[in-house]
Amino acid sequence: MSPAVLVINGPNLNLLGLREPAVYGRETLADLDAACIAEGEAVGLAVSCRQSNHEGELIDWIHGARETTDALLINAGAYSHTSQAIPDALRAYAGMIVELHLSNIYAREPFRHHSHISATATAVICGLGSAGYRLALRAVAERLASLRNA
Amino acid sequence: MSPAVLVINGPNLNLLGLREPAVYGRETLADLDAACIAEGEAVGLAVSCRQSNHEGELIDWIHGARETTDALLINAGAYSHTSQAIPDALRAYAGMIVELHLSNIYAREPFRHHSHISATATAVICGLGSAGYRLALRAVAERLASLRNA
Amino acid sequence: MSPAVLVINGPNLNLLGLREPAVYGRETLADLDAACIAEGEAVGLAVSCRQSNHEGELIDWIHGARETTDALLINAGAYSHTSQAIPDALRAYAGMIVELHLSNIYAREPFRHHSHISATATAVICGLGSAGYRLALRAVAERLASLRNA
Amino acid sequence: MSPAVLVINGPNLNLLGLREPAVYGRETLADLDAACIAEGEAVGLAVSCRQSNHEGELIDWIHGARETTDALLINAGAYSHTSQAIPDALRAYAGMIVELHLSNIYAREPFRHHSHISATATAVICGLGSAGYRLALRAVAERLASLRNA
Amino acid sequence: MSPAVLVINGPNLNLLGLREPAVYGRETLADLDAACIAEGEAVGLAVSCRQSNHEGELIDWIHGARETTDALLINAGAYSHTSQAIPDALRAYAGMIVELHLSNIYAREPFRHHSHISATATAVICGLGSAGYRLALRAVAERLASLRNA
Amino acid sequence: MSPAVLVINGPNLNLLGLREPAVYGRETLADLDAACIAEGEAVGLAVSCRQSNHEGELIDWIHGARETTDALLINAGAYSHTSQAIPDALRAYAGMIVELHLSNIYAREPFRHHSHISATATAVICGLGSAGYRLALRAVAERLASLRNA
Amino acid sequence: MSPAVLVINGPNLNLLGLREPAVYGRETLADLDAACIAEGEAVGLAVSCRQSNHEGELIDWIHGARETTDALLINAGAYSHTSQAIPDALRAYAGMIVELHLSNIYAREPFRHHSHISATATAVICGLGSAGYRLALRAVAERLASLRNA
Amino acid sequence: MSPAVLVINGPNLNLLGLREPAVYGRETLADLDAACIAEGEAVGLAVSCRQSNHEGELIDWIHGARETTDALLINAGAYSHTSQAIPDALRAYAGMIVELHLSNIYAREPFRHHSHISATATAVICGLGSAGYRLALRAVAERLASLRNA
Amino acid sequence: MSPAVLVINGPNLNLLGLREPAVYGRETLADLDAACIAEGEAVGLAVSCRQSNHEGELIDWIHGARETTDALLINAGAYSHTSQAIPDALRAYAGMIVELHLSNIYAREPFRHHSHISATATAVICGLGSAGYRLALRAVAERLASLRNA
Amino acid sequence: MSPAVLVINGPNLNLLGLREPAVYGRETLADLDAACIAEGEAVGLAVSCRQSNHEGELIDWIHGARETTDALLINAGAYSHTSQAIPDALRAYAGMIVELHLSNIYAREPFRHHSHISATATAVICGLGSAGYRLALRAVAERLASLRNA
Amino acid sequence: MSPAVLVINGPNLNLLGLREPAVYGRETLADLDAACIAEGEAVGLAVSCRQSNHEGELIDWIHGARETTDALLINAGAYSHTSQAIPDALRAYAGMIVELHLSNIYAREPFRHHSHISATATAVICGLGSAGYRLALRAVAERLASLRNA
Amino acid sequence: MSPAVLVINGPNLNLLGLREPAVYGRETLADLDAACIAEGEAVGLAVSCRQSNHEGELIDWIHGARETTDALLINAGAYSHTSQAIPDALRAYAGMIVELHLSNIYAREPFRHHSHISATATAVICGLGSAGYRLALRAVAERLASLRNA
Repeated sequence: MSPAVLVINGPNLNLLGLREPAVYGRETLADLDAACIAEGEAVGLAVSCRQSNHEGELIDWIHGARETTDALLINAGAYSHTSQAIPDALRAYAGMIVELHLSNIYAREPFRHHSHISATATAVICGLGSAGYRLALRAVAERLASLRNA
Repeated sequence: MSPAVLVINGPNLNLLGLREPAVYGRETLADLDAACIAEGEAVGLAVSCRQSNHEGELIDWIHGARETTDALLINAGAYSHTSQAIPDALRAYAGMIVELHLSNIYAREPFRHHSHISATATAVICGLGSAGYRLALRAVAERLASLRNA
Repeated sequence: MSPAVLVINGPNLNLLGLREPAVYGRETLADLDAACIAEGEAVGLAVSCRQSNHEGELIDWIHGARETTDALLINAGAYSHTSQAIPDALRAYAGMIVELHLSNIYAREPFRHHSHISATATAVICGLGSAGYRLALRAVAERLASLRNA
Repeated sequence: MSPAVLVINGPNLNLLGLREPAVYGRETLADLDAACIAEGEAVGLAVSCRQSNHEGELIDWIHGARETTDALLINAGAYSHTSQAIPDALRAYAGMIVELHLSNIYAREPFRHHSHISATATAVICGLGSAGYRLALRAVAERLASLRNA
Repeated sequence: MSPAVLVINGPNLNLLGLREPAVYGRETLADLDAACIAEGEAVGLAVSCRQSNHEGELIDWIHGARETTDALLINAGAYSHTSQAIPDALRAYAGMIVELHLSNIYAREPFRHHSHISATATAVICGLGSAGYRLALRAVAERLASLRNA
Repeated sequence: MSPAVLVINGPNLNLLGLREPAVYGRETLADLDAACIAEGEAVGLAVSCRQSNHEGELIDWIHGARETTDALLINAGAYSHTSQAIPDALRAYAGMIVELHLSNIYAREPFRHHSHISATATAVICGLGSAGYRLALRAVAERLASLRNA
Repeated sequence: MSPAVLVINGPNLNLLGLREPAVYGRETLADLDAACIAEGEAVGLAVSCRQSNHEGELIDWIHGARETTDALLINAGAYSHTSQAIPDALRAYAGMIVELHLSNIYAREPFRHHSHISATATAVICGLGSAGYRLALRAVAERLASLRNA
Repeated sequence: MSPAVLVINGPNLNLLGLREPAVYGRETLADLDAACIAEGEAVGLAVSCRQSNHEGELIDWIHGARETTDALLINAGAYSHTSQAIPDALRAYAGMIVELHLSNIYAREPFRHHSHISATATAVICGLGSAGYRLALRAVAERLASLRNA
Repeated sequence: MSPAVLVINGPNLNLLGLREPAVYGRETLADLDAACIAEGEAVGLAVSCRQSNHEGELIDWIHGARETTDALLINAGAYSHTSQAIPDALRAYAGMIVELHLSNIYAREPFRHHSHISATATAVICGLGSAGYRLALRAVAERLASLRNA
Repeated sequence: MSPAVLVINGPNLNLLGLREPAVYGRETLADLDAACIAEGEAVGLAVSCRQSNHEGELIDWIHGARETTDALLINAGAYSHTSQAIPDALRAYAGMIVELHLSNIYAREPFRHHSHISATATAVICGLGSAGYRLALRAVAERLASLRNA
Repeated sequence: MSPAVLVINGPNLNLLGLREPAVYGRETLADLDAACIAEGEAVGLAVSCRQSNHEGELIDWIHGARETTDALLINAGAYSHTSQAIPDALRAYAGMIVELHLSNIYAREPFRHHSHISATATAVICGLGSAGYRLALRAVAERLASLRNA
Repeated sequence: MSPAVLVINGPNLNLLGLREPAVYGRETLADLDAACIAEGEAVGLAVSCRQSNHEGELIDWIHGARETTDALLINAGAYSHTSQAIPDALRAYAGMIVELHLSNIYAREPFRHHSHISATATAVICGLGSAGYRLALRAVAERLASLRNA
């Protein structure tokens, strides 16, 4: 059976493709989810995707993923910069975590330069749009394979 | 048809008239909503009002207002000072935005002196109690009229 | 007899309509004064208007208003951010004070985000151009009326 | 009838006993709730317990407790360090409030050293694990008894 | 034989009951000492109490307690906020340490919000007046009992 | 001939006795000036007094005092905390300078705790009301006498 | 009987006249004490003087002065900048307090610019050498006389 | 006709040659003005010079220069470090602006290291005494010539 | 002909596999270079690799890459956190730039949390060891292909 | 023989005319060097010019200039903001030093507002492009002439 | 007669060898004193040693050493980081002062990175355990010999 | 064979004896190197010495010392305060490291008070001039001998 990966997108990412296309591109959240699922199939991962604007719901989902997934991809949007409860939830997750941002957050407003999530993640990828999600899944697949072989 | 305006009140504003009357006055949230709707009728705006203690719900409502309203009045309460996700949602709203506070937040505790929302708003009014909401609706009506005439 | 209101405009506001029209609009100070006086007449207030680039003169005028006016509207321009002597003068003024800014100062350079005057004012209105002054006069008229009736 | 006390546990406390046992111990949230209820019976308090990962839900519960309880015990987890809306809700609660933390938050990461809730509480107890909750209930019982006798 | 506990009170606590009764209550230091000794007897602890205004004397006493006591209760008063030598002494103490404050220090002046002692203590209790000392002794008794039984 | 001393009072001190009597007392500026002149006569100093709300005028007067006076008493009011031009003027004054404040500025709002003038003065006296001015004149007289005798 | 005043000098002031005469002058502590006692006699105050390098001893003396004196003069030397326990002791002293410094501390190293004691004092005098102590005693005598006459 | 240049000198520069010659040299303001006018004649510029200690007057002059001059030289003295109203006035000036300081402000006290004016100027020259003014006029002449030729 | 990519590794990366294997793994720099070249061949990129401990040499190489490459991968090691000259060089590079770090720098010492380079890069990848380099090359190949097809 | 002047240009200035012409203009480094040498000939100075991207090489050149030159012109580019070793080298240089920047660094990103070099220079000129270098040479020639004549 | 040196050890150093041997080693204070005395004999210095946990006592001893010793070795423990009164005492000591720390304080908690004492010492040695004291005595002997020979 | 020690001196130390003799003394770098080699011979260490103004070269030498030396003495001059790449290199060095400074850096400008190198060193010695280097070699010899004997 394929390893399971949950892709969690946070606040305002439901507007993907609808707001500030100069920053975030024209791809919608549905497009992004589809690309992740397809890439998952290509590299042998069972990918599911969720989005919420509610900090508490993101935490609930991270908790739920503890028993049911091998890795998490998380783009917590603006909660990356203000939430300490989401990082606490991630610290309690034993699998691989990749933090994602569509844009290069370090080239934007100062408040976006620090993500409390980064220190709890295995890796951080930003600035590659949806390609970043696909590469992250590829990295997860490689890592899980190498752990199986170890 | 009248332009539509959504009035969003955030955390703890459901207690209006019940807590700290010295700061917030004795008017309840129902009174405030009624005053807004009446003023809207007077100046030709279709006003609806909502209140929530949930940051995510405020974001959902702002998103929902993108296609259905011409202007937003928002008093995000204490989320004004801690949320970056609400300002992100407001940045994706194309209509006029007026930030409101019943009390003069600049004369209170230091943490209330900076609102992350202010930079995303068209205008800020504070310290006028419910009169501030009514004046904001009047300003919205004027602005929409001048845009129609331009 | 109508209650008296003094409108005080501070440094560089004499250039209104002449500098940075993208920020401040094309209306001149004379236009603004005229609009204030007209609005005053409409709501039953005797409005007079003054402008100076001198911090000391603004203080002298605030002192002078202590015995002769019922409310002050003040846009202290850049002195809002650097003067502690003007707030000291305002603390000695017993009437209603509305701080005004034509533009939304919270969406501009960081040094404009904090006004020392705000904590001494009854209310703050910014980002509404000259409409803000007119709404402020309306708020003053309402407040004075409710005090008379109380 | 026994005075009523609501015990509110915040984000990630549902994982109690499941994550970082070196920091939080092996007791589960169900164990903690049972211990609180039993202690309440011992000291004459009707204790009920709730947990949520949603900031807004914690606020709703605090509001609900205004009319129905005599005291609150609250461990707001990471929201202690980021929320200003929860303290605003607590400021509108007239009963006794005890802030609790299982671990000694002052001996952990710097971001946990300051809780916005502390200034709104009657008392703070941390570092005693579930015993802290039991002692807090005892303190509540003593205080309510002394108020009744006063 | 009963385990031994030393209660150390720091600067200005000799004025207890004499200064600022609104903050510290009307109980004197002698009352507090008596309450601690009585509670110790109730829970099976041999309690002794000392007070000094001298930082060096507090350090000497902590050193002396290393071989002769099983736990320390310490309220270092204002030295909590300025001393690094007392925390150094406490780091060399192997028994249980409970930091105490009569008032809720987090609701007072900012300089009282951070205690250098907290990070070296097992637990912190504040805001419960002398009841806090009694509860701390109860917690010590429980902890020592559970260690004996482990 | 008696040595000459200029007493300079800055912004808002013309309101002395008229505003915030709890902070500044009921004595007027005319009373203060008269007390200074009388004390000057008593200790052998020719005292003159001036007040202005204009920073530039204070500077002009300090310049003018360079050739005509032996000492300055200066209470620059709120300019103490914001002006660097007045201290620059004082650095070019060779006589004795005493900085005065009627109230204890260190017990008031934080912005009043630092005066840029203090580092350029010979001495600072605050919190003694008009008595501070009289004592300052006495100190000036003593110092000038000891210089004459040296 | 004459009102009693205690003059407290803190750390390193025993070296007066022996160290850094450019900053502190050539007068010894014995000279200073004698001058204070003589001035006290002149203005009708019974003055006694003490000096210690021990923070705890200064606190003990302030406590002791609560019942036996009408006013305190205190120059806490470097403890002015580091101690919070001495200000706590002074807050419990009901009489008049004058903080003194021989040199103008605001013109020296930055760490000397803020004294935690200032906010607890009635008045602050610095930069006048031993004359400052004499003027302070004169101010105390005046104040006590005016209170007696009130 | 020669292009017109206004040279504005700010607070305390009237003391040039009279105060701190080690820092500012022995040349007087009249000497500096004469040198500027002579250099202007040499490079084909009609130079006029003004000095004031009043922030408001400097602003008035900058406003007046908008229609009548092609370039400004400004040494705002200590107002460079405290005024935001002067920079606002300069932002409304369309011609070339050269900020000047006689001494190297970056080698003096920290408060002189940042000039709010610098960001509104075309160029900054400091540390060259009156030669800096002459070179600035030369630079203005070159720039205006190249604009005429472009 | 294949597009050219230069991989630049900065200070101490020559020690790869030799120092702190817990942080950086056991792979050597030669291994990393070989992996990059192989991945480049797989995705159609001509990859070359360089390493230096000299900030100036890194700048020289970035300059040299302006005319000869289509993309840069850069891991500037500790210079990421201290150099402003390398970011200046990167700002003058028109191709795609991916910043790489083997470890998750955001989970290490605070000084490693901010890279001045990030704001000048297209994308940032960290925490994936040498896999990060391979994924970056894949992202470069995709991006260049999409540009060619656009 | 003509006095000798070394012009040192630092990192990225070899790209002059090639990068960001909106900021730095279209003139190349060769053009700038030629202009300096020509101006030197005009005012009687033997000018030589060097550029390096290596901090150490800039230091070596400053050391070399100690015995062989009368003045230095230095534009250390981004090293101005990060290097303390270059200022240390300049402190050991006894001749005149002029710091130069082509653009007005105070109107650019905040990290460019402070140059560690400024405090070690005689003078600073910025915002005049290559004209600044020419004026600096003229100032050097004047100063050396006045020293010879003194 | 041999020159005299006083070795002063501050708070908690009486626990040497008893607490945290991983940081401070197993040598006791008696061992350290003996090593210092022996080394003193070897290099011709009369060494005496004292330890106290009382800040005031350390100050008293430094004062006492003014007339009786040629050099001081001082390890003020945690008072190094909080005391300004000890540095004031050291400023009044004319002989050579060597500050010592057994451990490398710069590699420990941030509050230990800055010692107020360092700026008043001739030299600082840390991280060498008791060898540091012996080397300091050797350095003192060398320096005193070179002064005698000068 | 004698253990090997490399002495690394950083930027501007080649000017030793040539610049600021009041701070650094009159001894040249050649003198210092000779003194180190002689002391090495005396205590049984093979000492070699290098100096460079290039940060990268210092890093190269530290790397080179990993296989060939038993200890490092390093005075990184101003790079101590700005480089993070040198500390990274030192972290990869397994032998003993002594950081040296000729002057007492804590008594000089604030930027010299913190050395990034200190936390990576075994010990720090400053303020003893070249004697510090000799004592450091003696400490190295002792430590290596004790390790051999352990």
